[in-house]
Amino acid sequence: MKTLLIIGIGAGNPDFITIQAIKALNRSDVVFLMDKGPSKDSLIDLRRELCQRYLTERPYRFVEAQTPERQRGDVDYQASVQALNQDKQQVFERLINEELAEGQTGAFLAWGDPSLYDSTLRILQQILASGAAQFEYQVIPGITSVQALAAQHKVALNRIGRSVEITTGRRLAAGQAGDADSRVVMLDAEDSYRQLRNQDLDIYWGAYLGTADEILIAGRLDEVADDIQRVRRQAREAHGWIMDTYLLRKPEP
Amino acid sequence: MKTLLIIGIGAGNPDFITIQAIKALNRSDVVFLMDKGPSKDSLIDLRRELCQRYLTERPYRFVEAQTPERQRGDVDYQASVQALNQDKQQVFERLINEELAEGQTGAFLAWGDPSLYDSTLRILQQILASGAAQFEYQVIPGITSVQALAAQHKVALNRIGRSVEITTGRRLAAGQAGDADSRVVMLDAEDSYRQLRNQDLDIYWGAYLGTADEILIAGRLDEVADDIQRVRRQAREAHGWIMDTYLLRKPEP
Ligand SMILES: C[S@@+](CC[C@H](N)C(=O)[O-])C[C@H]1O[C@@H](n2cnc3c(N)ncnc32)[C@H](O)[C@@H]1O
Ligand SMILES: C[S@@+](CC[C@H](N)C(=O)[O-])C[C@H]1O[C@@H](n2cnc3c(N)ncnc32)[C@H](O)[C@@H]1O
Repeated sequence: MKTLLIIGIGAGNPDFITIQAIKALNRSDVVFLMDKGPSKDSLIDLRRELCQRYLTERPYRFVEAQTPERQRGDVDYQASVQALNQDKQQVFERLINEELAEGQTGAFLAWGDPSLYDSTLRILQQILASGAAQFEYQVIPGITSVQALAAQHKVALNRIGRSVEITTGRRLAAGQAGDADSRVVMLDAEDSYRQLRNQDLDIYWGAYLGTADEILIAGRLDEVADDIQRVRRQAREAHGWIMDTYLLRKPEP
Repeated sequence: MKTLLIIGIGAGNPDFITIQAIKALNRSDVVFLMDKGPSKDSLIDLRRELCQRYLTERPYRFVEAQTPERQRGDVDYQASVQALNQDKQQVFERLINEELAEGQTGAFLAWGDPSLYDSTLRILQQILASGAAQFEYQVIPGITSVQALAAQHKVALNRIGRSVEITTGRRLAAGQAGDADSRVVMLDAEDSYRQLRNQDLDIYWGAYLGTADEILIAGRLDEVADDIQRVRRQAREAHGWIMDTYLLRKPEP
């Protein structure tokens, strides 16, 4: 049997890695490096660095794979993600069948936590269901960008006894987010928070969390929305990419 | 100046601890142990074990404090939590003022992540605001029980592009949870999932996650609700306490 480990490596700070993840790395013969897009190099560098620092107990090799990118623009989001996942599935199938021998263990390093807006788990399950490859697999949790955001702003995600919704910029912009009094927004390419001005909300915004380039801005949404938009645009130009997340919250009564 | 570190230690498995948390422990002169209630002993044991295993670079001491418990039964939940936090605030004030010398660093070890249904951060901020003690503080994220649940069930929290709501059993039972198609329920003392039968939902339930006593049950809510209730009651009797969490999810189309 082959074994696959989906290892959450935390969202930015190499010190977010857990002892469980380090132990999992040290069971791996092959580490797959799968990032794509403009942030590719920095994200792959962090993965290499973590392996070099912590995967010390056995020989291993990296296998880097080009993964397809999602079609953007005027296409149905859900359909484009599903098409992307089918393309990815083929890449993963090939990696598992060709790069891993029977009895070996392969690691997929998921950014943050594998259970939050990450397709690795779903793709592996689809491969299993299709019968195209056989393996056992385990999931190792990691620190999400949501937790990094809360920690760096020193803020609780929930108000006392209240709910927290984790959602996407796309849903927020489309008015499809719920009305929890704490909402965390990920995957926002469009400054969707701007649409919630005049609603008496606080915002806690963070970009490149956990890295040397981290930027934090917090305040009344109405007062800081322009700042965030400006800083965000400048940072994206300077780096060529941006990863940012924010918490929108009704103020404490 | 005094420094306080609010360190997330993960929710159950000692291997959930991060390198960042280990480094933070190793900056600490005093480690405060604050648990209460029937689960007290096991939870404090895990904290002691983590310190003994990882806090190796300097001398330190434990300070154990009895913390007050929340008034239960027929009282307003929010008010009872606020009253409890006021009592706790006095305990924390005393600890900071009496047990920590100027220039020293004290650690509060938060179960799971300090930003999720944990009062430590809020209490320390209230102390600062009241002027009753002065200190700097930092927050170190930890693996939540929500992530442990998802990892152990090998399930993503969100459906593709959709939201996830994290809420309490109390809110779920009161119909105050939103309608996200993935809902994670914590702090449920009343088997509130039972009220959502006949709604065509899947449930992923986990108790004592990350520990040797871990129990997992998953399936269609209608089919497994009775099992969960029975197993839950038996486990609570056997241990004298229970910690459980679950994900309720609309099935994939
Ligand atoms: C595909 S999702 C993956 C989330 C990841 N699994 C996690 O646990 O954080 C990518 C989104 O996560 C957020 N994100 C990830 N890392 C981040 C970081 N270091 N700083 C800010 N946001 C981040 C951004 O909202 C980004 O659009
Ligand atoms: C006061 S909250 C603290 C949550 C914690 N800060 C976290 O990050 O998981 C306590 C609730 O967390 C959940 N919980 C914590 N640890 C758990 C575990 N090991 N297994 C199952 N549920 C757990 C239960 O729902 C419990 O009622």
